[in-house]
Amino acid sequence: MSDTGVSVKKNEDFSEWYVEVVLKAELADYAPVKGCMIIRPDAYAVWERIQDILNEKIHRTGHRNVYFPMFIPEAFLKKEAEHFEGFTPEVAWITQGGDTPLEEKLAVRPTSETIMYDAFSKWVRSWRDLPIKINQWCNIVRWETKATKLFLRTREFLWQEGHTAHLTAEEAEAEVMYALGEYRDIMENYLAIPVLVGVKSESEKFAGALYTTALEAIMPDGKALQMGTSHNLGQHFAKVFDIKFIGEDKAEHYVWQTSWGITTRLIGAMVMVHGDDKGLVMPPKVAPVHVVIIPIPFKGAEPEAIAAKAKEIADNLKAKGYSVVLDDRQEYTPGWKFNQWELKGVPIRIEIGPRDLKQGQVVMVRRDTGQKTPVKDAEIAASVDALLHEIHNNMFAKAKALLQDKTSVVQSYEEFKQVVEEKGGFIKAAWCGKPSCEAKIKEETGATIRIIPFQKEEPTSGCIICGQKAKDTAYFARSY
Amino acid sequence: MSDTGVSVKKNEDFSEWYVEVVLKAELADYAPVKGCMIIRPDAYAVWERIQDILNEKIHRTGHRNVYFPMFIPEAFLKKEAEHFEGFTPEVAWITQGGDTPLEEKLAVRPTSETIMYDAFSKWVRSWRDLPIKINQWCNIVRWETKATKLFLRTREFLWQEGHTAHLTAEEAEAEVMYALGEYRDIMENYLAIPVLVGVKSESEKFAGALYTTALEAIMPDGKALQMGTSHNLGQHFAKVFDIKFIGEDKAEHYVWQTSWGITTRLIGAMVMVHGDDKGLVMPPKVAPVHVVIIPIPFKGAEPEAIAAKAKEIADNLKAKGYSVVLDDRQEYTPGWKFNQWELKGVPIRIEIGPRDLKQGQVVMVRRDTGQKTPVKDAEIAASVDALLHEIHNNMFAKAKALLQDKTSVVQSYEEFKQVVEEKGGFIKAAWCGKPSCEAKIKEETGATIRIIPFQKEEPTSGCIICGQKAKDTAYFARSY
Repeated sequence: MSDTGVSVKKNEDFSEWYVEVVLKAELADYAPVKGCMIIRPDAYAVWERIQDILNEKIHRTGHRNVYFPMFIPEAFLKKEAEHFEGFTPEVAWITQGGDTPLEEKLAVRPTSETIMYDAFSKWVRSWRDLPIKINQWCNIVRWETKATKLFLRTREFLWQEGHTAHLTAEEAEAEVMYALGEYRDIMENYLAIPVLVGVKSESEKFAGALYTTALEAIMPDGKALQMGTSHNLGQHFAKVFDIKFIGEDKAEHYVWQTSWGITTRLIGAMVMVHGDDKGLVMPPKVAPVHVVIIPIPFKGAEPEAIAAKAKEIADNLKAKGYSVVLDDRQEYTPGWKFNQWELKGVPIRIEIGPRDLKQGQVVMVRRDTGQKTPVKDAEIAASVDALLHEIHNNMFAKAKALLQDKTSVVQSYEEFKQVVEEKGGFIKAAWCGKPSCEAKIKEETGATIRIIPFQKEEPTSGCIICGQKAKDTAYFARSY
Repeated sequence: MSDTGVSVKKNEDFSEWYVEVVLKAELADYAPVKGCMIIRPDAYAVWERIQDILNEKIHRTGHRNVYFPMFIPEAFLKKEAEHFEGFTPEVAWITQGGDTPLEEKLAVRPTSETIMYDAFSKWVRSWRDLPIKINQWCNIVRWETKATKLFLRTREFLWQEGHTAHLTAEEAEAEVMYALGEYRDIMENYLAIPVLVGVKSESEKFAGALYTTALEAIMPDGKALQMGTSHNLGQHFAKVFDIKFIGEDKAEHYVWQTSWGITTRLIGAMVMVHGDDKGLVMPPKVAPVHVVIIPIPFKGAEPEAIAAKAKEIADNLKAKGYSVVLDDRQEYTPGWKFNQWELKGVPIRIEIGPRDLKQGQVVMVRRDTGQKTPVKDAEIAASVDALLHEIHNNMFAKAKALLQDKTSVVQSYEEFKQVVEEKGGFIKAAWCGKPSCEAKIKEETGATIRIIPFQKEEPTSGCIICGQKAKDTAYFARSY
């Protein structure tokens, strides 16, 4: 394989394989600033696709996009104590404008609750002003001290943050679940990544929230990845930022709030879950290119006729709404192009050679399985459509099998420790609900509670640490 | 008028009128951080519309979107001397991450040439790697010391920056003009704002460019507003960042580069140019809402029948792709709603009262002229379509008349000074080309050269300062 291909096998050195795929498939590049990254066109196109999908969903339900300043006064962050403690250790601070030191240093937003809710307190007067349902796509900075990793943990990343304020606790609860449901749809039905959903434990919840719900996926190395969160903020911030309204009952009430977000780390998850030793495998519903067409000219054949047919197929598929690349570059061989587009994960390759021309067909190659099928000219569009669906379904099924394979149930702490070390993945274990037992597990094994499922799963033992009556079956894992 | 209406007349106190319209129409709000702003949903929707229009254009011509880090090492900014001098006085600096002082302070991007071109130097090896044509939508920070103004001058703003690298000087020149042409199309044919295009003088060009082209509009108070710029960077940055390629001739060459941008200040221009004493007037092609429908129930009439008809019209127009609000809120009067939606600048209002119901018609009201026309039910969709075009054309024609009215030709510096003080606007004057004459005008009158037109206009006098042979007719103005 050429030096442009992936040199490491996924199941031999997963971490190195991941970095190679991201760099060589040109999804991202390292930036000159430590812990930051450059998001290149193919990855940014996936992000834009996620933006379009989510925007369409949330606009339909009355949410509107906005933009709030990136700079947050230190005093704002301090207002909610838990929030301040949770975020200040990783805040980047602006202390100087031009040559002049600032009077009050400014935080670069690690999240926008505080600056947004200060505005909410001005905007909300009466029940008529509610609900507020806004969303923001922006950059976020968290000055990580842990090792960073492209897409998964960088000091600057892109995300969306939905922020809402409601008349009642019930409305806020419904909103939390609404966002979670839309996220799940994006992850499973677009990115082809199955997720577990549930509630975080107190120690893992968002700093300042009443409770946090989350979506968690498992990576092939057995580590969990938090894919998105949706927080019920209760009235915590409303009380701190004084967001009150006069109700229809003429009395004064605090609003009930939610916030929810997904980030560019979803792109990292997509690479990890679906990629293989040849490189990326793009889920068809977010792929920047659906089909690459590669003419295969031979000496003595009819290059013009092949070129004309390739062009016609490309135009026809484009007219049907597919994103198509006709790679007719002369300076590269077909074999080189195959490798290149496999590295980039394009779901379908169409090859057209002299024999295909004669037989009124093309050869269609699936990226996910490598399977080659001759397809009659008249059936190309229908086959592309069917195949893209099939590829999505197959990718999801494979990822689902991985999730099932990487989920274990244990009855004791001994067993727990053994699974953590030898297999990883999600470990379902009985937990009494005490933070001390949770903390012991984290300290000794590195595994944390990823979620407690909404559908209570009856514990099959006492708490694996203290042996007392278990409150929940929790899903533990080591995580990114 | 209620306290929610605009209390200042546009021709009495333009500056105060502008701020009131922006705040009361809920386009933006002041932020708790000095010089920053909150972009609210209606304004952000205009920005998203501009994004969609430009993305569609530039994607069609092979440009792709990316995201580069916001943080730029100080050393990078310093590499191109002019660039450093131009931008460092207004750079915001990150000096601390969490509790730890940074070893090298980091600039928050005032523009991204330096960090992008460092990457270009790694990505470009051969002529096959060119052209690079990328674009980024992001936030930008310039720590203004001048008075800030919502949308027009804020310490943080949103923009797009296109960055390209080419094989030849000719390609780069064509790219500069390409971007300028697309910008002009957006400004004139979507925002309904006529612009002058041309070249900046040496003293007004982008710091580090070979030359800068720009689009300039005139505001009703006679000040010019720079609407967008497109820079030919020549090989300045290529040489500093060492962006070289091996050509087909096997020799090493530096690339030729361009960069170009438009910002959220376009929204400010839109408000200033089109707004009136009732508030905003949204150009139909970027308006977040095209049509507002207001049922007008009277006692004894048939409220259900009116409501049903209003709903049917709304659904029908939505199905045709228009953005429609049916304002059937019970808690507000029709009169209150009229004022509200006029304040927000919705191009067309449809009123449906009992008499309209009887006569199988509605009343359509244009926001730009206030003209009311009865329209038969069967003709509503066609009328909306025609009216939106007519409104756009009328708004553009009015703005064009303003531009013409605010453009003067002078033969002497005396005349120049008189026009600057009494009338403002663009002043066409003969200029010898010497920076000293340009500087004298700026110092004494505050007016700068906005553009020198591409189509050379023969000077009608000697240089208005030194009397020597004039090189150009330049367009001067005081500006935002």
